[in-house]
Amino acid sequence: MIRLDARDPGFADAFSALVDARREADEDVAQAVAAIVARVKAEGDAALHELTLRFDRHDLDVTGWQVPRAERRAALESLAPDLRDALELAASRIADYHARQKPEDGERTDAAGVRLGARWRAVDAAGLYVPGGRAAYPSSVLMNAIPAKVAGVGRLAMVTPTPGGETNPLVLAAAEIAGVDEVWRVGGAQAIAALAWGTGRIARTDVVVGPGNAWVAEAKRQLYGVVGIDMVAGPSEIVVVADAANDPRWTAADLLSQAEHDPTSQSILLTDDATFADAVAEAVEDQLNVLRTGATARESWAANGAILILPTLDHAIPLIDRLAPEHLQLAIDDPDTLFARVRHAGSVFLGRHTPEAVGDYVAGPNHVLPTGRRARFASGLSVLDFMKRTSFIALDAAALDRIGPAAVALAEAEGLPAHAASVAIRLGGR
Amino acid sequence: MIRLDARDPGFADAFSALVDARREADEDVAQAVAAIVARVKAEGDAALHELTLRFDRHDLDVTGWQVPRAERRAALESLAPDLRDALELAASRIADYHARQKPEDGERTDAAGVRLGARWRAVDAAGLYVPGGRAAYPSSVLMNAIPAKVAGVGRLAMVTPTPGGETNPLVLAAAEIAGVDEVWRVGGAQAIAALAWGTGRIARTDVVVGPGNAWVAEAKRQLYGVVGIDMVAGPSEIVVVADAANDPRWTAADLLSQAEHDPTSQSILLTDDATFADAVAEAVEDQLNVLRTGATARESWAANGAILILPTLDHAIPLIDRLAPEHLQLAIDDPDTLFARVRHAGSVFLGRHTPEAVGDYVAGPNHVLPTGRRARFASGLSVLDFMKRTSFIALDAAALDRIGPAAVALAEAEGLPAHAASVAIRLGGR
Repeated sequence: MIRLDARDPGFADAFSALVDARREADEDVAQAVAAIVARVKAEGDAALHELTLRFDRHDLDVTGWQVPRAERRAALESLAPDLRDALELAASRIADYHARQKPEDGERTDAAGVRLGARWRAVDAAGLYVPGGRAAYPSSVLMNAIPAKVAGVGRLAMVTPTPGGETNPLVLAAAEIAGVDEVWRVGGAQAIAALAWGTGRIARTDVVVGPGNAWVAEAKRQLYGVVGIDMVAGPSEIVVVADAANDPRWTAADLLSQAEHDPTSQSILLTDDATFADAVAEAVEDQLNVLRTGATARESWAANGAILILPTLDHAIPLIDRLAPEHLQLAIDDPDTLFARVRHAGSVFLGRHTPEAVGDYVAGPNHVLPTGRRARFASGLSVLDFMKRTSFIALDAAALDRIGPAAVALAEAEGLPAHAASVAIRLGGR
Repeated sequence: MIRLDARDPGFADAFSALVDARREADEDVAQAVAAIVARVKAEGDAALHELTLRFDRHDLDVTGWQVPRAERRAALESLAPDLRDALELAASRIADYHARQKPEDGERTDAAGVRLGARWRAVDAAGLYVPGGRAAYPSSVLMNAIPAKVAGVGRLAMVTPTPGGETNPLVLAAAEIAGVDEVWRVGGAQAIAALAWGTGRIARTDVVVGPGNAWVAEAKRQLYGVVGIDMVAGPSEIVVVADAANDPRWTAADLLSQAEHDPTSQSILLTDDATFADAVAEAVEDQLNVLRTGATARESWAANGAILILPTLDHAIPLIDRLAPEHLQLAIDDPDTLFARVRHAGSVFLGRHTPEAVGDYVAGPNHVLPTGRRARFASGLSVLDFMKRTSFIALDAAALDRIGPAAVALAEAEGLPAHAASVAIRLGGR
């Protein structure tokens, strides 16, 4: 953890170092992934079979290519009732929030008599990657699948590695609640390639979303354009703005809720009170000592944690915009005034009773958010990621006579005479 | 040109071949581009200087790094009046159409007492790539720059190669009309890298848009995530649906307006009348013989053109959806009924007096559209490409008591005790 005081002479440089620090692994897997993608494109299911045997150590012809519907239903039925209620509350709140994102079609006829508009439709099929192992979260299944369903996507195909053939019942239950149509036991770059190109068994999809390791992320990047993809995700991060009126134990818990994700996660406290800062640092140590995920959280806090002491909380605003954090928690009395002046953040948690974790599960907005300063230009996952817009234009002879000559002039100037001719031939047409 | 009749036994296979034909060059420039990008990141302006000398054969320290504002103003002032009027009409119609795309912020407080919402903001800076040579179109400058301006982007930096130091006055005039802030004389993968990473002279941008060759497209793909990018664009294409009530010369002109772009462009006619099909084919030959861009258009029409004869125009719908064309022209009496049943197209031109070319210049909707079957999942360029959404959540103690326990249950089930603790510590808090 680094502790910086904005009044120290080295603050600007130290803060820039914090902003520029790369926490993402620079594994160069591009060539290995390209080879896998090419193989799946050429060989289809045979490649999936062989690669799954090699990387996940099970034979798809024995374990089954898909997790049968009955197994997914059974996983849901055997959930503890409080857990099932929690997943269903989360699903219903996520569906409700995302339903309001559905864009409206529109059209109008303007003064020149030109009818113009835009129409939105869902993609036909979406693919959802769900990692195996540590990062296999049922909440992520809900957050990735429900926006697709709300968009109106007809077919939702999930892929997930099942090392040794073992499935994760919580993930299966979440897939069942979210309305996932197919669950395939394949993972890694080969699963992304299968969703993008299609194989004999797995039909091609149009958009592929979901988190994954460096191989999965690189496969998505390489196949961008063959399919639509969501933003490449990096390590998770939070910026907490808190004044001395907070309970330092609450603030410490907020910082650790990011730190426990992964050693590469980042938690940053911005405060205007040095004594409060000390109290939070102490509470972090206390909680680390008893936390079941303490080893990971301690590693993250030691390597990437930061406490910044500012003259006033107004000083936080430019720092927040440079960090463009995935999560921003404003634990102050009047969070809206500060929020109005912030430009770049993925999701904002307003007030002292809005811990970021409530947004990870049940608040409703998506928890798939831009990381690594990408909130400068990117948004959280939404219904729009599963839809596309078709613009349309309709002219009659009179409208074309009004605006057509300008098109002819521009086409001629650009050296495109057939463009010009297709308009000119219709002028004065009626 | 291939001519297919839907009643022929080989139709299904021949149509599939048409859908799957790859017209995009498979130039493998990934490694060369990666080297250029890495060099610009490490060496900044020195790399731009050396690469511009090598590829564009001019010395930036002599020609100047930027095109000065005075030169851009002079280019605008010296335009022929009808051309200036045409560019200004186009700019004003494009701005008007795109202004209606601006999303609205929203918030509400739900039954559980949870306040939820989303807020949109423009990115700080956008980069616009404008190719040199044949594809340097002033209309593209307007179509790429104006949505950024409408979004509210504060800084718009254009990069364009000026081989031998020569600039294109039409492009400069369009940049001036569109409100471009900076015009840099750099091109290729190195220009994209400069916009993404920043150099000593060129400040980093947040989103990079605009068409380019294989090197530019690969640089954008590699830098996706460092900055936001628009969809990778391939060769242009049109599907024209026309019945026998059309003048075959009009339909021929529409097909050739795509074909003249490039030998890789594609024009497809769908009709329900074989005699009309023959008349169009004949009119295409007649027009090719006199067209100034006839050599290119003939090459495109020969290699990629197609006329498909269908029993009725209803048969066009599934074919259109498989082609997912960039441009779809419906030259029939009741185009809306057919359009309502089409799922996948970039932009649709309704009726007999709406040639696609009117949309390239002055109609208002964007002409940067998804190509190569990407209308299945992608949309034309819009104001949204230059904005990002921040979600927000606010709970009070009572709301947290209502939905917090479900978050605690899910966090525990996912093995994330610090997430659970950050909620649990606040429950029953007041």
